[in-house]
Amino acid sequence: MEAAAAGSSAGSRSGSGPAPAALPPLDAESRELLEAWRDRVSCELDTVIDFWIRHSHDPEHGGFFSCLSRDGTVYDETKYVWMQGRQVWVYARLYRSVPRFRRPELLEAARAGGEFLLRCARPDPRVPKAAFALLRDGRAAKVQRSVFSECFCALALDELGRATGNACYERGRTAVLEHVSQDGLELPGSLGRLQNPGHAIEAGWMLLLHARARGDMAAADEAIDGFMLGPLDAGWDSPHGGLLAFHDADGLCPTQLEWAMKLWWPHAEALVALLAAFAHRRDPALLRRFEQVAEFTFQRFPDPEHGEWFGYLNRDSSLALSIKGGPFKGCFHVPRALYMCEELLNEILAGP
Amino acid sequence: MEAAAAGSSAGSRSGSGPAPAALPPLDAESRELLEAWRDRVSCELDTVIDFWIRHSHDPEHGGFFSCLSRDGTVYDETKYVWMQGRQVWVYARLYRSVPRFRRPELLEAARAGGEFLLRCARPDPRVPKAAFALLRDGRAAKVQRSVFSECFCALALDELGRATGNACYERGRTAVLEHVSQDGLELPGSLGRLQNPGHAIEAGWMLLLHARARGDMAAADEAIDGFMLGPLDAGWDSPHGGLLAFHDADGLCPTQLEWAMKLWWPHAEALVALLAAFAHRRDPALLRRFEQVAEFTFQRFPDPEHGEWFGYLNRDSSLALSIKGGPFKGCFHVPRALYMCEELLNEILAGP
Repeated sequence: MEAAAAGSSAGSRSGSGPAPAALPPLDAESRELLEAWRDRVSCELDTVIDFWIRHSHDPEHGGFFSCLSRDGTVYDETKYVWMQGRQVWVYARLYRSVPRFRRPELLEAARAGGEFLLRCARPDPRVPKAAFALLRDGRAAKVQRSVFSECFCALALDELGRATGNACYERGRTAVLEHVSQDGLELPGSLGRLQNPGHAIEAGWMLLLHARARGDMAAADEAIDGFMLGPLDAGWDSPHGGLLAFHDADGLCPTQLEWAMKLWWPHAEALVALLAAFAHRRDPALLRRFEQVAEFTFQRFPDPEHGEWFGYLNRDSSLALSIKGGPFKGCFHVPRALYMCEELLNEILAGP
Repeated sequence: MEAAAAGSSAGSRSGSGPAPAALPPLDAESRELLEAWRDRVSCELDTVIDFWIRHSHDPEHGGFFSCLSRDGTVYDETKYVWMQGRQVWVYARLYRSVPRFRRPELLEAARAGGEFLLRCARPDPRVPKAAFALLRDGRAAKVQRSVFSECFCALALDELGRATGNACYERGRTAVLEHVSQDGLELPGSLGRLQNPGHAIEAGWMLLLHARARGDMAAADEAIDGFMLGPLDAGWDSPHGGLLAFHDADGLCPTQLEWAMKLWWPHAEALVALLAAFAHRRDPALLRRFEQVAEFTFQRFPDPEHGEWFGYLNRDSSLALSIKGGPFKGCFHVPRALYMCEELLNEILAGP
């Protein structure tokens, strides 16, 4: 049953919408470059998933640990609902979409995570409010007012329903990440001027895929130029390289203490965005931009010793935090980005 | 009326409790050192108060701006209730306790700040809940669940009542900062292991002053050894100097992105703590420790160009944020610490 249902819409959200007819063919140099990146990306994806399978599963209570030290040791048993939902999504999507990940243990882990969420995420069954953090055994530890826990639960169960063919998990889709990208942008004062290049670029690839699926080429151009290239130019830290965590639209000093740090996830999102943009437009400048971000990212973030990526670098790229996971870094941005890059590279290389 | 009431208990909370009889006299070298620091400290206090008087007052709506750029420009008009309450406290205390600050305009500014708080801090007069942030005109912008806004309002109005002799402002005292020092210490997982040297040291001088006032010499020793010297040793960043913002009791990596940054307020609190400890014990090792922290602090935090202190340095002491004030830095830690250091130095130098 699982295998029959899985894969029925594989790749449907990874950029394979109708491409404009007039795309120029790849030149030999670009093809070679993209093939090399496909190998690096898929090898990195294997390493990353292996890290989370080895270190994050809780066979006793179900669910996933996300607070992992550099070598995978659990330094805190708190289970964050965002991270539970995101890891279920990653496992179920990989199982459904990528042949080499169609392994029963991956689906079983996704299903166990989904059951943990259904059992524990909502502390009071009479109230439709998910907790933010759970104790190891699933009892609620912290409830927040924002709706992101609920959103990531819904996305997880939606994808798990597709992977297992079990509609009991499905709860419809939610425009989760657009909410995230609006965070802070409408508040008065310095928060109103605050720019988060990572959120803009992440919103950019979502808009681009949506625009391509609708065949709206003007919206696709706006996604590339307004949501990707603009924030990349404004947020790229030219003396040191890499994307700033925050910057101020008027060039003032942000009040976020980490504003000049280099975080893993904006770089992961930028790789997806630039490949999706290149797949759409075939502009060699986009490929050069991809290469710039990818070289920076692959040189600094992956941990050659224990696998997975470091999350937090100082402005000069020295290591700020050695943890591999925590309350806000789990099995999500890195594998999602690598998976999507692999799909986009396959799509590009399969074309003319 | 103001002048009659003000000063009636000047210095009562600044370490002037009964000192043990057996204190050794100051040697000439220590006396010279302490006199030089008294001059630096009182000069610095004048500069800091001048900065806030010139840049933070809002003559139109009352209340204080705290979001000030390096040169004092207002970059955000939000008025944070913590910062309103703290600035009222600083102005009223200085007016009441330090002769050169007994200036009518300082008391008038404190009174205007207190009136702004009474008028605007509680968005719903039927509910005893203060807002966290207000718009410039005093309308509520953000309400939080924690009680710190209420605590800083109470402290402000208590001190304002003492300075003006107007009991309408008084609401009794609250053990505010002990609450702050407990923040995070009782949570499970990595937050349970989290150490905040600044909060421990700040609690240390409060405990020491309380213990001296009660004549409890065992508690005073515990305040010095357990709350000051222990956290100073554990939190001092020996390769670079300065106090870490956070560290983990088991030596693991904290999850706070700013854990290795150098923040202004732990250094300000450590100056007060070490002088209070030296005033109590006259141990030359405490004076050497004060000198170490004071040299680090005075070399790196004050802005020689525009006055006041920078708030946020990177681990290597380079400047991370150029702002002088923001949601969590206002007219409080720096002037309170300088004022208390000046009082403590006067007390020590007046002794044998």
